[in-house]
Amino acid sequence: MTTDQQKQRLEDWFQTLQQRICQALEDIEDEFKHPGLLPGRFKFTPWQRSEPTPTSPDNDGGGGTMGVLHGAVFEKAGVNRSTVYGKFSPEFAGQIPGCENDTTFWASGLSLVIHPLNPFVPAVHMNTRHIITTKSWFGGGADLTPTFEFKEDTDTFHKALRHACNGHHPDDYAKFKLWCDEYFYLPHRQEPRGVGGIFYDYINTDNFDHDFAFTQAVGESFLSSYCEIVRRRMHQPWTPDDKYQQLVKRGRYVEFNLLYDRGTLFGLKTNGNIDAILMSLPPVASWV
Amino acid sequence: MTTDQQKQRLEDWFQTLQQRICQALEDIEDEFKHPGLLPGRFKFTPWQRSEPTPTSPDNDGGGGTMGVLHGAVFEKAGVNRSTVYGKFSPEFAGQIPGCENDTTFWASGLSLVIHPLNPFVPAVHMNTRHIITTKSWFGGGADLTPTFEFKEDTDTFHKALRHACNGHHPDDYAKFKLWCDEYFYLPHRQEPRGVGGIFYDYINTDNFDHDFAFTQAVGESFLSSYCEIVRRRMHQPWTPDDKYQQLVKRGRYVEFNLLYDRGTLFGLKTNGNIDAILMSLPPVASWV
Repeated sequence: MTTDQQKQRLEDWFQTLQQRICQALEDIEDEFKHPGLLPGRFKFTPWQRSEPTPTSPDNDGGGGTMGVLHGAVFEKAGVNRSTVYGKFSPEFAGQIPGCENDTTFWASGLSLVIHPLNPFVPAVHMNTRHIITTKSWFGGGADLTPTFEFKEDTDTFHKALRHACNGHHPDDYAKFKLWCDEYFYLPHRQEPRGVGGIFYDYINTDNFDHDFAFTQAVGESFLSSYCEIVRRRMHQPWTPDDKYQQLVKRGRYVEFNLLYDRGTLFGLKTNGNIDAILMSLPPVASWV
Repeated sequence: MTTDQQKQRLEDWFQTLQQRICQALEDIEDEFKHPGLLPGRFKFTPWQRSEPTPTSPDNDGGGGTMGVLHGAVFEKAGVNRSTVYGKFSPEFAGQIPGCENDTTFWASGLSLVIHPLNPFVPAVHMNTRHIITTKSWFGGGADLTPTFEFKEDTDTFHKALRHACNGHHPDDYAKFKLWCDEYFYLPHRQEPRGVGGIFYDYINTDNFDHDFAFTQAVGESFLSSYCEIVRRRMHQPWTPDDKYQQLVKRGRYVEFNLLYDRGTLFGLKTNGNIDAILMSLPPVASWV
């Protein structure tokens, strides 16, 4: 299979996954039957990466499609896919494998963050991506951020991700889980962002089909387990104080994303699409 | 006057200024006569800087008093004074004047951020400080962040700060105003945080009394002009949509403080008091 064929398969998958996730979330919106609000629907906004200019590298381009839903179950759900390519600036190329002598890159992926309305339904983040420089690799992960932890939900989520790993990287689940715990951590508060999941990067076993299948399994495992958790929790009654606790927890989410998240800082400092990058921020957050 | 006498005068002033500002804000809470809410009152929380440990530099110490009010006019007002001393870590000492051969420092100051409830009353930030290393200098500034700009309010604020400069640094107002505009700017959104004010640092004319008087004048000018603006706007009727616009504007404030603000990042990365450092974050903020 040529690189161009691989790129096409990746793009097709991320597009399919975006459609399936958005459909699944809309199905839940329909099921919920809020007495006053219409079921939420995704609005899709295509965006283009900026064209080459005299001061930016040659041949930069690509773009993506950002899907955002504001609904009765999902206060804000953002599901973004993108394919971008060009040359990294020298400043960043030094941090990227395979860019020592050639800063050309191609990257495709899907990224989502969901902030539910009900404070007992956990927030979630999932991202999978493929990067090509003179090397190529997969990266990604998924992690759950409850305001109030229910062990049953945490177990459902972790079990699904362990299942995805077991089918493809049977020895690596513990490593990917620990990587997630270490990454999604707020040092200034000495607290984790949530209850974790998995995080991985630089995956290349020299078998594209194998690694691609793992990426697909992560997407599938996220989707089935998160929908199960949402259906389990979405009717649980909550009080204004429960909601307030959720808004404070979301404040921590904002702190993590703006202070530490590599993707967010990378995007902001490389003139990425602001709306797509900051799609992860919650609809409402509080600080005491 | 000895350095110890200077330090005492600075500490006394910042304590007096904190008391006067808090009293002035409580007076406005009393005047507002909200039909349902009691007038807000400051709660003061003293905090200590962490004691020396085997892994941190000798002789680190000091602390401060954080005052926070949640009221009917001021949804959240935080007024913090602190005096801290010790040795900078080598990593930071390189960025600090006078620390080339001796990283000992002493710093005292007052910092405040006010987020009003009414979206037509602008948010405000003010900070004045004195730092002593082998050199010594004053720094500070004040800037206004309206959601909806009223030229009359902007003029009141700028005029008061120009007046403070004219009495002590008559040639520098334009420079301090420009410095503020350049500092409080969100490059990723290509927009200013607010309508500016003044920002200055490394002020030392070899006349402590003169520079100290300027610092006092900035505090006085802030206090009188901001109270005038609040009284002018606090009864102006607003709608839920106006409020929503304010919450979105506050989101930008969060982005600035967590992505760019030197004081915030410095504090978080040097194990400062988290509550005092993040006191600047709004009570509620929104992202679309």
